[in-house]
Amino acid sequence: MGDKGAHNNRMELNGKSIIGQGRSGGSQKTFYAVNAATGERLEPAFHAAAEADLERAMALASAAFPVYRGLERARRAAFLRQIAANLEGLGDPLIHRVMAESALPEGRVRGELGRTCFQLRFFAGIVEEGSWVDARIDTADPDRKPLPRQDLRSMLRPLGPVAVFCASNFPLAFSVAGGDTASAYAAGCPVVVKAHSSHLGTAEMCGSAIRDAAAQTAMPEGVFSLLFTEGHRMAQALVAHPSIKAGGFTGSRGGGLTLLAIAQKRAEPIPFYAEMSSVNPVFILPNALQQRGAQIAAGLHGSITLGVGQFCTNPGVVMLPVGQGGDGVVSALGEKLRATAPAAMLNRNILHAYGKAVAARAGDVRVRSVAAGEQPGNAAVPALFEADAKTFLKTPELSEEMFGPASILVRYESLDQALALAATMEGNLTATIHHAPGDEAACAKLIAALETRVGRIVFNGYPTGVEVCQAMVHGGPYPSTSDGRSTSVGARAIDRFVRAVCYQDAPAAVLPEELRDGNPAGVMRVLNGVRGRE
Amino acid sequence: MGDKGAHNNRMELNGKSIIGQGRSGGSQKTFYAVNAATGERLEPAFHAAAEADLERAMALASAAFPVYRGLERARRAAFLRQIAANLEGLGDPLIHRVMAESALPEGRVRGELGRTCFQLRFFAGIVEEGSWVDARIDTADPDRKPLPRQDLRSMLRPLGPVAVFCASNFPLAFSVAGGDTASAYAAGCPVVVKAHSSHLGTAEMCGSAIRDAAAQTAMPEGVFSLLFTEGHRMAQALVAHPSIKAGGFTGSRGGGLTLLAIAQKRAEPIPFYAEMSSVNPVFILPNALQQRGAQIAAGLHGSITLGVGQFCTNPGVVMLPVGQGGDGVVSALGEKLRATAPAAMLNRNILHAYGKAVAARAGDVRVRSVAAGEQPGNAAVPALFEADAKTFLKTPELSEEMFGPASILVRYESLDQALALAATMEGNLTATIHHAPGDEAACAKLIAALETRVGRIVFNGYPTGVEVCQAMVHGGPYPSTSDGRSTSVGARAIDRFVRAVCYQDAPAAVLPEELRDGNPAGVMRVLNGVRGRE
Repeated sequence: MGDKGAHNNRMELNGKSIIGQGRSGGSQKTFYAVNAATGERLEPAFHAAAEADLERAMALASAAFPVYRGLERARRAAFLRQIAANLEGLGDPLIHRVMAESALPEGRVRGELGRTCFQLRFFAGIVEEGSWVDARIDTADPDRKPLPRQDLRSMLRPLGPVAVFCASNFPLAFSVAGGDTASAYAAGCPVVVKAHSSHLGTAEMCGSAIRDAAAQTAMPEGVFSLLFTEGHRMAQALVAHPSIKAGGFTGSRGGGLTLLAIAQKRAEPIPFYAEMSSVNPVFILPNALQQRGAQIAAGLHGSITLGVGQFCTNPGVVMLPVGQGGDGVVSALGEKLRATAPAAMLNRNILHAYGKAVAARAGDVRVRSVAAGEQPGNAAVPALFEADAKTFLKTPELSEEMFGPASILVRYESLDQALALAATMEGNLTATIHHAPGDEAACAKLIAALETRVGRIVFNGYPTGVEVCQAMVHGGPYPSTSDGRSTSVGARAIDRFVRAVCYQDAPAAVLPEELRDGNPAGVMRVLNGVRGRE
Repeated sequence: MGDKGAHNNRMELNGKSIIGQGRSGGSQKTFYAVNAATGERLEPAFHAAAEADLERAMALASAAFPVYRGLERARRAAFLRQIAANLEGLGDPLIHRVMAESALPEGRVRGELGRTCFQLRFFAGIVEEGSWVDARIDTADPDRKPLPRQDLRSMLRPLGPVAVFCASNFPLAFSVAGGDTASAYAAGCPVVVKAHSSHLGTAEMCGSAIRDAAAQTAMPEGVFSLLFTEGHRMAQALVAHPSIKAGGFTGSRGGGLTLLAIAQKRAEPIPFYAEMSSVNPVFILPNALQQRGAQIAAGLHGSITLGVGQFCTNPGVVMLPVGQGGDGVVSALGEKLRATAPAAMLNRNILHAYGKAVAARAGDVRVRSVAAGEQPGNAAVPALFEADAKTFLKTPELSEEMFGPASILVRYESLDQALALAATMEGNLTATIHHAPGDEAACAKLIAALETRVGRIVFNGYPTGVEVCQAMVHGGPYPSTSDGRSTSVGARAIDRFVRAVCYQDAPAAVLPEELRDGNPAGVMRVLNGVRGRE
């Protein structure tokens, strides 16, 4: 790479916030990351960012915005690709730090790094192709009666600096260089990231990769900053800062709603995209159960325990017919979960919350515990519960998320009851339908009920596994996300950070390339009502 | 039309809310529309809707939604076109009622009816063409390593029943059958309209036209309801109702923010699109002033007084260089405004608020009154004020909207000062730049400053006049609208009432036509990353 010095610097953690191309000593306060599996403190000490660091990051981001949004598409794409290359260049030290901070296994971490780099290059490709800006042109008609028609041209333009909050459960793919950052950069927005306190070292390494990429591709300095903070004060100050124009968050409902309220109460309210909680209901229809019961039990086991259940798409509620076939799934799934080894979780808070949620269900007389071993205290034991549909329908707390390797099986007696379950669920990221020949009518009715309640409907599959692609929707009606019209994964994630701007009778020289006569950018656009590349 | 009975019914006002295909007696409370010019009471009495009317309208709308959203595109288009035909069929009685209720002149009313019908047919065309659903398909790749890729298909789907609030200043184009209704219908959403108390008879006529169109084209009954109410209680109950999934509003900042807060505080928050207030700054650059000063003064006069200044795009603040050229515009514009006859406004509240706003400016010692005749009490007299840029910059209340035929000229001394004015303005629907050869550098800097502050930038023109077309953006950063990513005019208005839904490994039979193999709908879509019609 001929870049050995920078590369080495990216390995050596110094625990200071990254403010543009510089580092900040921050406040006097320091804190440490922790080995998620052992609880041991990890070096070095991290310095909590000071107010002045936030102000400097914001001033740099504001100054960078007009420059960055005006860059030609190839430049923005090159920046995104350089970030991916720098992340890959971090090599094993990054992998090992992520493993230590998250207790995630090596295969998963390497897979997540691959996904993160793919995502950066995916958005680079979208930026380069350019049609995402949705350019529309209505040319002038000076002879129109009663009034001449003006020349009107519009396209999507970036909102401004974006605040990104790292997610506990994806130290790479939904954190410093994750989907929010990649899509904000694709849109043309500078980014200020708040690191997650669980993976500080990972954040610093990824932050250094972005900072260096910005320098290597001659981006304006303020295109990136990374703040280390403990507690909520700085996160709230970031969302409240007048220079921030949008926010992206993946985490708990409480945290998301607190930041959303701040975003809405500002003198100038801003869009705040919080992806919060989801139980991802799975509906198993009678013929599917009869034909593939054992297979479904095995598939559910894999999906419930994947990543120690720490996915927003984890199947937390499964609707299963009453009767012998369903009983078979209950016992097969229970057996598999009981046989699954306890595993360390991402951090102590998550483990504690999981233990509490499982204990609450286990102690609920309305619920049967199929598998709910004692939680040993330092690792999560998978858990499975069972309730009848009537009880579930009148007990809203039973549909609350248990973040971890746990699920509740809800036994329904009739299609009407299954439809009632679908209609009364809160908004979710996904719903899944297992169907087989003979289930067609039931399936159609379920789809109609679920289509307005979730972002993605999975057929004969499992909700975990969120593909980065054009068609993905990883967002859903409230409370799964704060804005049910948004997705945090896939090409449409860019749309969160833009708005349409219209130019009326603009001189050709001031128009963005995508709106010029003759379509020099070669984008798909709408010209006088006709879609094409002309 | 072979439909004489229905046609006559549409003329005869009975003052009762329209609930689906039925009418409601409402509560005991009655109220009247008023002749806006004379203050005389207009027959008949209107009956305030009761709680039960709202509940019935919502139950019908909820039942209609799954049917309406599933209709083939041609059916929805036919419904929109039938509404337009029915509106045109209302003929002179509609024109005369609008004139009486709004004091708008006949030409304007006929023009607005034309625009309203054009808008309905414009959205019918968009629905029929179908590409607006933004279909995206990523086909399966079972051989992909390490994991196979699922088949993922997504498109925009309607949110559900929409609450529409009629605007005082557009009894037709932004009211019962206006842009919010047309775009919600295009999206696939039923509509429940709250009539504006200033144009009750107009609302009933237009409502009858929609109700009959629903019957004529065999739409589900609950696709439309119209509620007559006085005061704010019912409006608030409508936004708070759990069956409502989005709202559209054009009106005052106070009214918009109140309803927005209700929408955000619901158990399930919903998007609420309020188009509120805007002063639409106009920047006159030095060379443009020198070359076309007199022409610009005449153009500003036309734009300020158009429709008695009762447009959200009225130019309320004009930035003008100091010096002789600017002085010429001040005196020419002042003279023209002083010579403009007083005119009746839309209603007494608006006239009263206008008089108050003008009096406040006239009594402000920091401001010079160029034209601010006494307000006679029953008609609006145009007003013009002048302030220097320094004063304006440090006096935020001077940039508040005066809804009516009034504007303030702000005299700037340097380009830096003009840029400071641009940078400190609140969000606006539009900004205008008058430029001429020699102004290129200043123009570029102004565009950069304004692009993030407004929805539409007008060059060498005037902000009034909002074309219904693909490229229009009639929305802007807060507080001009509650959601700066939205537009209430033009093709993108549909996007307010939809969200993307993804289908993973769905059986072909359950997929919407736009997502099927072979593209039977013939829409422009993204197939494995490539845009086209295949």
